[in-house]
Amino acid sequence: MTDLLSIDDLGAEGIAEVLRLTDSFVEVTNRPIPRVAALRGKTVVSLFFEDSTRTRLSFEAAAKRLGADVMTFSAGSSSLKKGESIRDTIQTIEAMGVDALVVRHASAGVPAQIARWASSVVINGGDGWHEHPTQALLDCYTIQQRLGSLEGRRVAIVGDVKHSRVARSDVKAFAALGADVTLVAPPTLLPPTLVGWPVGVEADLDQVVEKVDVLYLLRMQRERMTEALVPSLREYTARFGLTSERAARAEDAGAIVMHPGPMNRGVEIAAEVADRPNVVVVDQVRNGVPVRMAVLFLLLGSRRDLLDGPAGGVVGEVPEEAEADVRG
Amino acid sequence: MTDLLSIDDLGAEGIAEVLRLTDSFVEVTNRPIPRVAALRGKTVVSLFFEDSTRTRLSFEAAAKRLGADVMTFSAGSSSLKKGESIRDTIQTIEAMGVDALVVRHASAGVPAQIARWASSVVINGGDGWHEHPTQALLDCYTIQQRLGSLEGRRVAIVGDVKHSRVARSDVKAFAALGADVTLVAPPTLLPPTLVGWPVGVEADLDQVVEKVDVLYLLRMQRERMTEALVPSLREYTARFGLTSERAARAEDAGAIVMHPGPMNRGVEIAAEVADRPNVVVVDQVRNGVPVRMAVLFLLLGSRRDLLDGPAGGVVGEVPEEAEADVRG
Amino acid sequence: MTDLLSIDDLGAEGIAEVLRLTDSFVEVTNRPIPRVAALRGKTVVSLFFEDSTRTRLSFEAAAKRLGADVMTFSAGSSSLKKGESIRDTIQTIEAMGVDALVVRHASAGVPAQIARWASSVVINGGDGWHEHPTQALLDCYTIQQRLGSLEGRRVAIVGDVKHSRVARSDVKAFAALGADVTLVAPPTLLPPTLVGWPVGVEADLDQVVEKVDVLYLLRMQRERMTEALVPSLREYTARFGLTSERAARAEDAGAIVMHPGPMNRGVEIAAEVADRPNVVVVDQVRNGVPVRMAVLFLLLGSRRDLLDGPAGGVVGEVPEEAEADVRG
Repeated sequence: MTDLLSIDDLGAEGIAEVLRLTDSFVEVTNRPIPRVAALRGKTVVSLFFEDSTRTRLSFEAAAKRLGADVMTFSAGSSSLKKGESIRDTIQTIEAMGVDALVVRHASAGVPAQIARWASSVVINGGDGWHEHPTQALLDCYTIQQRLGSLEGRRVAIVGDVKHSRVARSDVKAFAALGADVTLVAPPTLLPPTLVGWPVGVEADLDQVVEKVDVLYLLRMQRERMTEALVPSLREYTARFGLTSERAARAEDAGAIVMHPGPMNRGVEIAAEVADRPNVVVVDQVRNGVPVRMAVLFLLLGSRRDLLDGPAGGVVGEVPEEAEADVRG
Repeated sequence: MTDLLSIDDLGAEGIAEVLRLTDSFVEVTNRPIPRVAALRGKTVVSLFFEDSTRTRLSFEAAAKRLGADVMTFSAGSSSLKKGESIRDTIQTIEAMGVDALVVRHASAGVPAQIARWASSVVINGGDGWHEHPTQALLDCYTIQQRLGSLEGRRVAIVGDVKHSRVARSDVKAFAALGADVTLVAPPTLLPPTLVGWPVGVEADLDQVVEKVDVLYLLRMQRERMTEALVPSLREYTARFGLTSERAARAEDAGAIVMHPGPMNRGVEIAAEVADRPNVVVVDQVRNGVPVRMAVLFLLLGSRRDLLDGPAGGVVGEVPEEAEADVRG
Repeated sequence: MTDLLSIDDLGAEGIAEVLRLTDSFVEVTNRPIPRVAALRGKTVVSLFFEDSTRTRLSFEAAAKRLGADVMTFSAGSSSLKKGESIRDTIQTIEAMGVDALVVRHASAGVPAQIARWASSVVINGGDGWHEHPTQALLDCYTIQQRLGSLEGRRVAIVGDVKHSRVARSDVKAFAALGADVTLVAPPTLLPPTLVGWPVGVEADLDQVVEKVDVLYLLRMQRERMTEALVPSLREYTARFGLTSERAARAEDAGAIVMHPGPMNRGVEIAAEVADRPNVVVVDQVRNGVPVRMAVLFLLLGSRRDLLDGPAGGVVGEVPEEAEADVRG
């Protein structure tokens, strides 16, 4: 694997490898000095054509904790505004000496296109309605942390699946690890076809709420109303929102609640529900940093480090030994 | 003390402790390599909901010189724009592994509210018309540096006190250290009530100019005119500006002139006056970095470091020993 | 030399010194960990009053690879918007403890003016139509790398010379190193006078294309049309663009093609031509980082390091020895 553009690049085995490696970076993250030198001398560029402070900071924190240098390329103030093509921009950035590009773009497929041009590693930080693979990885890690494993778990993904890159990556990753995934949404918020999606579909959240291990709520964007895809936010909330009443039933049945953030409290989740102990949104964000450390390490770390360790040694050894080399 | 939201959190003793500690960080700042490792492994986030390059860069320089990592969270391009609540934003940032939040906000009380939610240290970087405690600390340090002590010193704070967080923090800090503070302003630019303010009031700058040790000029904002609080800038300057004539009298009487910046040359201070040797505006900025190092160290540094040293040992020992551990 | 404002500050000897030093930083850049500690403890501020991600990132990468700290001062969100003068802004930034200012500004002469005020080193990162000296240095380095030397080489600079700071710096630098420079442009895009310019002028690109070693294409800005300086882009391209046909003739004659970027493919250069092997645009960007490392080192590095080395020792010794001191 030389890029991470889609969950398809990993498959079940690759996902499992990232999750195993994440355990060791969680341990690093809990140290007094949460840093290793595994990527010392490497430069990671965050290339965000679409704003996302949350994802960008998580990637940049992950890169810094691995000892890499970080360059932030904000598309808004760049030569792209002067009419330069994305391809020329990529060539320019790479010529400055770059090892990985984390790309976010409003259009599906741009990271993959950039990967064809670039000689450095490309990581998809979210592209259009297509994929957001590191979100799916941190979601898998969070579910595993709470429920032991994804195998046989029933997961409902609720809301605007049609416009969600998170949903597309999550469906692939959850199914690859053996979960049983159901989409819960009005027909207008489902993709035009679900051929090839390993999912069931359900139109009534109340039928699902007590039968699942994971309720994954998607962000409901206000522009969907102006597009007449839902009659009103109030109506959406009544039918697909996690109200207090539904949340209590789900909690009684032992379900955890997830959300990729930022949450619209009062729309897809009742304001007071968001702070219940079975809502693991903060864990998802927390796990984002070590998951992205694992991804960066897998793509940029030394193969020797990966191969020389004892069985499972990558997890324990590499960061340890690297730490001995870190001073500042 | 776990946060710095107001000068009230420090009291006279706390202020004195910050100023003593600042001495040692001034010494660090003057080294060829102005860095210690006291906060190595800590992450400081600057969370500026209101633009302030000056204060943000000063805090970030302070954090870096203590060996901390810095994350810059610009509210303008963040998920707050997508309707996320500040509380959820704070939870998200903290989940990435953060030790201190430096918060600036246009509304009074936001840093205090954030401190109630956050488990990390919160430092008020200026909130509405409320407080700007690190500005007051660097002002105290600068006065002490020039005049030896605040005790018994006569300080006039001139201008738009009503809308000034600097004035509120300065009044508290100067009075706590024993200075005699007079506000000089037209009634429209004074707060509705001065009950509880340890100050005198004077409406005529000419009465004051030769009788004080410190003339502290506040920034006059153009919007005050549209609000009809002053008839015109020309009028304001004539009555409350530090003209050349007044400046000469103040200088003859031995006063220093301060300003929190950015200065409106030609409004609250005559253009040519701003460069006189008794104008200590540049010293204020220069002292800002070591003062903020002292604050960050007090709030985030190891208690052991603070307690184990000999009397006054914090000042000399901690940075020294830390330096031995800094490489890069 | 204490600042780099113009190629005039260097002269032929200074340029040659930068190019020699660049060799050693190219070597550093090719190491697994492309970093030295030569400027450890120094702070370099990028002070860009005009957007330029490309130049800013190149300078910042150069400073970091020398071990310096970097502060980014974005004029857009600064106190300049609040009416502070540039002079006060400079004083404020310098008071925070700064060693070098890299200044870009839309008006010619601003970096020179700042240099008169500042006590730190000032490097011109491009000012108006005046100069862009580090661009000229990386251009010289790239030509030398490809052609061995500038001495006696025939260079054509094609396009909007009138509004180009790159052209002004390049003409000086190329001529200083012994090249024979010809400007190729319509009269409307030439400066009002060429008195003192060591150049020839030619109005017909076809007369030149097979007779030069270097074709240097300038960026054609769309606003030139609205100013009626060229009838249309199509017309410009037909007369002064590097079409496929002209490019083939130039390539057959052994010429290399340069451009300061960002390129307008389809205007000054045909889209398919830009990827030919004799187009060295990516080399120019790549050389930008070590060239700027050389400039920063010359202006901020220790004089002792410069003087103590054996002949040419600066190149090999300083970074080597510094590296031994780098840990992280």
